[in-house]
Amino acid sequence: MDRKVTLAHGDGGELAHKLIQQIFVSAFGNQSESRFDATFLSLSSGKIAVTTDSFVVNPLFFPGGDIGKIAVSGTINDLSVAGAVPYCLTVGFIIEEGFPLADLRKVVKSLAVEAEKAGVQVVAGDTKVVEKGGADGLYINTTGIGLQREESTIDPSRIASGDAVLISGPIGDHGIAILAARGELGLMTDLESDCAPLNHMIDAVILGGVDVKMMRDPTRGGVATTLVELAEDFDAIIELEEEKLPIRDQVRGASDLLGFDPLYLANEGKVLFIVSESDRQKTLELLHQFPEGRDAAVIGRVTGKGVGQLLLETPLGSKRRLHRLSGMMLPRIC
Amino acid sequence: MDRKVTLAHGDGGELAHKLIQQIFVSAFGNQSESRFDATFLSLSSGKIAVTTDSFVVNPLFFPGGDIGKIAVSGTINDLSVAGAVPYCLTVGFIIEEGFPLADLRKVVKSLAVEAEKAGVQVVAGDTKVVEKGGADGLYINTTGIGLQREESTIDPSRIASGDAVLISGPIGDHGIAILAARGELGLMTDLESDCAPLNHMIDAVILGGVDVKMMRDPTRGGVATTLVELAEDFDAIIELEEEKLPIRDQVRGASDLLGFDPLYLANEGKVLFIVSESDRQKTLELLHQFPEGRDAAVIGRVTGKGVGQLLLETPLGSKRRLHRLSGMMLPRIC
Repeated sequence: MDRKVTLAHGDGGELAHKLIQQIFVSAFGNQSESRFDATFLSLSSGKIAVTTDSFVVNPLFFPGGDIGKIAVSGTINDLSVAGAVPYCLTVGFIIEEGFPLADLRKVVKSLAVEAEKAGVQVVAGDTKVVEKGGADGLYINTTGIGLQREESTIDPSRIASGDAVLISGPIGDHGIAILAARGELGLMTDLESDCAPLNHMIDAVILGGVDVKMMRDPTRGGVATTLVELAEDFDAIIELEEEKLPIRDQVRGASDLLGFDPLYLANEGKVLFIVSESDRQKTLELLHQFPEGRDAAVIGRVTGKGVGQLLLETPLGSKRRLHRLSGMMLPRIC
Repeated sequence: MDRKVTLAHGDGGELAHKLIQQIFVSAFGNQSESRFDATFLSLSSGKIAVTTDSFVVNPLFFPGGDIGKIAVSGTINDLSVAGAVPYCLTVGFIIEEGFPLADLRKVVKSLAVEAEKAGVQVVAGDTKVVEKGGADGLYINTTGIGLQREESTIDPSRIASGDAVLISGPIGDHGIAILAARGELGLMTDLESDCAPLNHMIDAVILGGVDVKMMRDPTRGGVATTLVELAEDFDAIIELEEEKLPIRDQVRGASDLLGFDPLYLANEGKVLFIVSESDRQKTLELLHQFPEGRDAAVIGRVTGKGVGQLLLETPLGSKRRLHRLSGMMLPRIC
């Protein structure tokens, strides 16, 4: 087999057949694609959740992950925060001619490992090759199917005054790790991306009986944009306490230096919860049992209903309103 | 709204929000994405079919279609030939910075129109923007979910000596139309791509009671590669009669001139059937009722079981063995 991907790997002929057999089938152990154009699945439940995401992260390999890991995490987390149990994934690759086959193998392996950790099957795949210059190495689409959880209490219209807002860990790690990996920081950091599938941790919170009213993963646009959208969609007034935001020193330092606000930095392994006030402590305890939730914190609360808005209370007690991310901050973060 | 796509349209902020509302939600009439990270669907059946495909066709607009139409047709047809009833689609866009918003609107509209014709809903979407030079205009991934048909008799292991091989119309139209649209032919042609969703025509054949043993859409690699794979996978000897292959004059002429074999050219609106010998005529009649099946023809038969192979009988009676497409023929055909 050649050592680089060629256009012939994508044209449906002999080389494409070999690529599928040697790289994809061996990683995912799934022969079905060679026999049918679609894969059949038997579902125990009649209600499914569907989500899709394309990944164009740059660089493809970064501290804490790679595009394969993020392609699994992103879609698993989208299903999980919607209150579904992730069941299976499809994967579509767009590969630039000349891309090293060794790198493709690494990405596919990483994708397979994360899918296995998360307990989901990769059930269908597709590969396209474009000419040199037609893509930046490799792009991946994953589409996820999940089963609706019967225990799910999620319903953001139930958000009420007094509800607690929690985050499962420090914010902004992914954004700064990617920037550093691009060499755009001008400073060294040992920071790793937080990207990880969170479905097992979310399972524990739901099955632990917490009255979860809302979950979101604050990816593009960060914690602020995610909560502004939520506040506006469900007419809630949400107040965050600046002092309580978990932010690593490296993220704070880099943000100060470069003029970023960590509240707008992307996260790929964090989840925001809004839960009943009475379940605040229980949620924290459940999250703290997981490595991904070790630094979980209560960061604010819902203070009322009305014209939806997100407010930030500073350590001095003043409050300022936060808005959606506007204009370009960091392209190709996922 | 700006007239070109910018990186800020893809970063999860204010502009991305507007893009989704003004272009996608208005075309697909689906508000669910703004409230949840995944869309929930209630299914009547417990068994679903899943398929995924990325589309990188060049050029994006061509006689007979565009990337939006092909992105729907390709995935609908993959579900249909597997014996499933297409139910819904997800759509993921990767857009190059600077791409005209007017073109994006055209593509999204075409996609919505074809999805409606095919009777499927677009249930989830995603948009990523990459820097200028990071993609060639626009790439689309569609993932399809279908419901397994209870009436389906499809099972290629039932293929037996005497079975008829049919194609729903002339071959090679898409391949030559794309080449011509690229200006690589050096000759003018009024040929249009055949790209179209075929689910209603396939419905008619299945519901008409034909004993269909196999269906495939001969896309990348063409009729020859599709049938070689099938013959090898199911130990069948398939013989095609060269004289019976429906090929338009324009395709034959362009192929002769450029050294292509129409049997290896891509089709995007054709389906190959293998049916019981006794259902040959009935299948033809059912296909002929549809515009897409007007020129359907019996092109060969299964002559035995054993070491799988595809043979072509020439008008003079000699037979030659056909193999998979090997090496690059036409990149970015879909």
